Amino acid sequence: MSQGNDVQTYAKQGFGNQFELKAPVGLLIIDFVNGFADPEVFGGGNIKEAIQNTVPLLAEARKRGWPVAHTRIVFADDGADNNIFSLKVPSMLGLKEDHPNSAIVSELAPVEGEYVVRKTVPSAFFGTSLAAWLAMRGVQTLVVAGAVTSGCVRASVVDAMQWGFRPLVLSDCVGDRAIGPHDANMFDMEQKYATVMTRDEALKAFKYLPACQGKQKTAALNVPKKGTI
Amino acid sequence: MSQGNDVQTYAKQGFGNQFELKAPVGLLIIDFVNGFADPEVFGGGNIKEAIQNTVPLLAEARKRGWPVAHTRIVFADDGADNNIFSLKVPSMLGLKEDHPNSAIVSELAPVEGEYVVRKTVPSAFFGTSLAAWLAMRGVQTLVVAGAVTSGCVRASVVDAMQWGFRPLVLSDCVGDRAIGPHDANMFDMEQKYATVMTRDEALKAFKYLPACQGKQKTAALNVPKKGTI
Amino acid sequence: MSQGNDVQTYAKQGFGNQFELKAPVGLLIIDFVNGFADPEVFGGGNIKEAIQNTVPLLAEARKRGWPVAHTRIVFADDGADNNIFSLKVPSMLGLKEDHPNSAIVSELAPVEGEYVVRKTVPSAFFGTSLAAWLAMRGVQTLVVAGAVTSGCVRASVVDAMQWGFRPLVLSDCVGDRAIGPHDANMFDMEQKYATVMTRDEALKAFKYLPACQGKQKTAALNVPKKGTI
Amino acid sequence: MSQGNDVQTYAKQGFGNQFELKAPVGLLIIDFVNGFADPEVFGGGNIKEAIQNTVPLLAEARKRGWPVAHTRIVFADDGADNNIFSLKVPSMLGLKEDHPNSAIVSELAPVEGEYVVRKTVPSAFFGTSLAAWLAMRGVQTLVVAGAVTSGCVRASVVDAMQWGFRPLVLSDCVGDRAIGPHDANMFDMEQKYATVMTRDEALKAFKYLPACQGKQKTAALNVPKKGTI
Repeated sequence: MSQGNDVQTYAKQGFGNQFELKAPVGLLIIDFVNGFADPEVFGGGNIKEAIQNTVPLLAEARKRGWPVAHTRIVFADDGADNNIFSLKVPSMLGLKEDHPNSAIVSELAPVEGEYVVRKTVPSAFFGTSLAAWLAMRGVQTLVVAGAVTSGCVRASVVDAMQWGFRPLVLSDCVGDRAIGPHDANMFDMEQKYATVMTRDEALKAFKYLPACQGKQKTAALNVPKKGTI
Repeated sequence: MSQGNDVQTYAKQGFGNQFELKAPVGLLIIDFVNGFADPEVFGGGNIKEAIQNTVPLLAEARKRGWPVAHTRIVFADDGADNNIFSLKVPSMLGLKEDHPNSAIVSELAPVEGEYVVRKTVPSAFFGTSLAAWLAMRGVQTLVVAGAVTSGCVRASVVDAMQWGFRPLVLSDCVGDRAIGPHDANMFDMEQKYATVMTRDEALKAFKYLPACQGKQKTAALNVPKKGTI
Repeated sequence: MSQGNDVQTYAKQGFGNQFELKAPVGLLIIDFVNGFADPEVFGGGNIKEAIQNTVPLLAEARKRGWPVAHTRIVFADDGADNNIFSLKVPSMLGLKEDHPNSAIVSELAPVEGEYVVRKTVPSAFFGTSLAAWLAMRGVQTLVVAGAVTSGCVRASVVDAMQWGFRPLVLSDCVGDRAIGPHDANMFDMEQKYATVMTRDEALKAFKYLPACQGKQKTAALNVPKKGTI
Repeated sequence: MSQGNDVQTYAKQGFGNQFELKAPVGLLIIDFVNGFADPEVFGGGNIKEAIQNTVPLLAEARKRGWPVAHTRIVFADDGADNNIFSLKVPSMLGLKEDHPNSAIVSELAPVEGEYVVRKTVPSAFFGTSLAAWLAMRGVQTLVVAGAVTSGCVRASVVDAMQWGFRPLVLSDCVGDRAIGPHDANMFDMEQKYATVMTRDEALKAFKYLPACQGKQKTAALNVPKKGTI
């Protein structure tokens, strides 16, 4: 694939702009579960490295008090929620609530108050309350890490953008079982959907974000409680 | 309907709390179109009064620079998007792009930059980009006016809450063709989904809201634009 | 509330039509869990009777091989998914995965292959895969039972209709903690969103439905599996 | 990109299965508008050829009476619905209701009863009623043609699958401004989301589909119309 020419074509037509970051920021970690860390299950490629790179990112998000969401693929034990995705990729059906392959990797284990999103499709937003959860927190920029770049990451980034959040994909915190699809999807996302940085570029950039993340003030209203309408 | 007893039952079970307002605030005006203003079409009851009461509310929203969205029911001219709602209420099919019944009433006509949402069902959020539009603006509290209380207003208020926005329903800025359903739905919304105030209570309350509505600062990032991934 | 006048107003404006049933049919049972059966928690009114009336309905659905979905309200144990609904009705937060109040009542316990939908808002469709699950099964008519009429039933019926399914609400299989809101919401649903019958009327009607519910034939395609694109 | 190795990795992990077609079938034609046909706007690559290949496909769909939907990107004239996508690709904002670039190409112009979906994001399903429209028609398999493979086609195919429809992507009826992204996205879709065929393979396959597309019978119900509940 002659990426040089492709980039020129895209640039000429107005693609590939970077948009600025905007607070509040949230962090979404997609499917970093044992099954996607293991090359014998759904892993391989650069996924393990992406997991390691995400550890300091998660620490920073917690330090800054960002809303943090993790996703897991979880199908019902009895298969009642099988879907077109599992028809296409039947091996996904092994990801059940109590199966180790569906457990978040220990180095990124969620802590209290972090939202664990269960899903049965690629997008973290489909059939979940994630968009509402982020909207309720006023999130404007969504930092994205996870696996795999060409699957659940890509689908979630497209949806994040569609739902009104600015996706910031960290190129070394997302990974794929195969590098060809990883590269191709990074190209698509950078051209059309997301701002792309390395983790270290992002950690530097966050320092310049306004710190209005904390508890927002609410109006102290003296609302008369009515017994009847 | 013995509303006194009902209120006691609800209170005992933990319903009917008021939640506080939180900036940023947006305004949603639902289906205040000619057809719903006209008792011979879909109007009647207290709708005309609700429209008049909304005029100063819209002026205030514009003064404060709130995001403002209006909805209209608009079916395709050739009926290609007929749906279960129009199967149930075939008279809705008369609301087409260029039909006067589907035009927003002149006293509330949208100005540039206000979002006009076309829909074919009760909820302003269904099959539209409204949730994304509000999320992108960080809206936390959604002030709701419109018609009819027991239909599109109720459905939109339930969805607003589900999408993570705090609905503030102004009791004298929403109306219905019949007062029984209006009262019953105000009861449901106040018990379970929304904070309810009169317009004047709300105008007073807004004064206590923090004025962080304007342009939020974005991070001035020196992002290197890459030619290749 | 002078329902007689209201009905006339609605009829004059084109509301209140019945639409016909259409196979395939699915069954949705909403929040018939211990907490909504218990008048000391979220129950009362005519809910217990509605549960009993639903037992033969579920038996019929199983006999006919319909897709059956049940809903439960389930919040995360650590409260990470609290939302605007739980802000308004904090007592809902007691409904957790392993709390008896959130368990489906024993007489309607799901069997293998029935879809158990976990939700944190009124509508069974919001933040869930229910619409996709029904679409994948080609469901055209959705029979609705559950609690409460003025809350999760109403919200789910509006969404069912919006998602393209014909709601058939069985008036004696839905219940509410208070009769005023039950009646008011039955009125709204019958006028605008659903076909309404008693359970026995419905059981009789189902006999006239074409029996094309079973396994639909798929095309035996000789698709060459390609190693490369 | 060493596609050979990638394919082996995917096959080992259970990807790349073909699912069978299932009637009823619908056709979705994505963004075949003048602006995407013109290499000086958003076109180029193999898009023009894909448009020509789609002409006989659309004829076949009409002959068979399939539900047909077309999409167009249409932003509001005053820019009130600008979004993250248009922030990333500002040139998209030129696609307005009456601009020739946003008009469907003449050789595929919709006829009465075909659903024209207006959207402001990549997915044909986001912020539109398309999923409901297909569900109401019981569609099980969604044939997909359109532009561009790496953008709106990919996003719509992922959503089609998520919404419970089986996507059948016709490899020579979808096109992209650049061949690298086209090939990469065909790989992703074939491995994870869709059945892929050429148009001629598909036209042959359709002959084996059961012809139950026509008017489905509805139950002739003698439902007593009640004046009151």
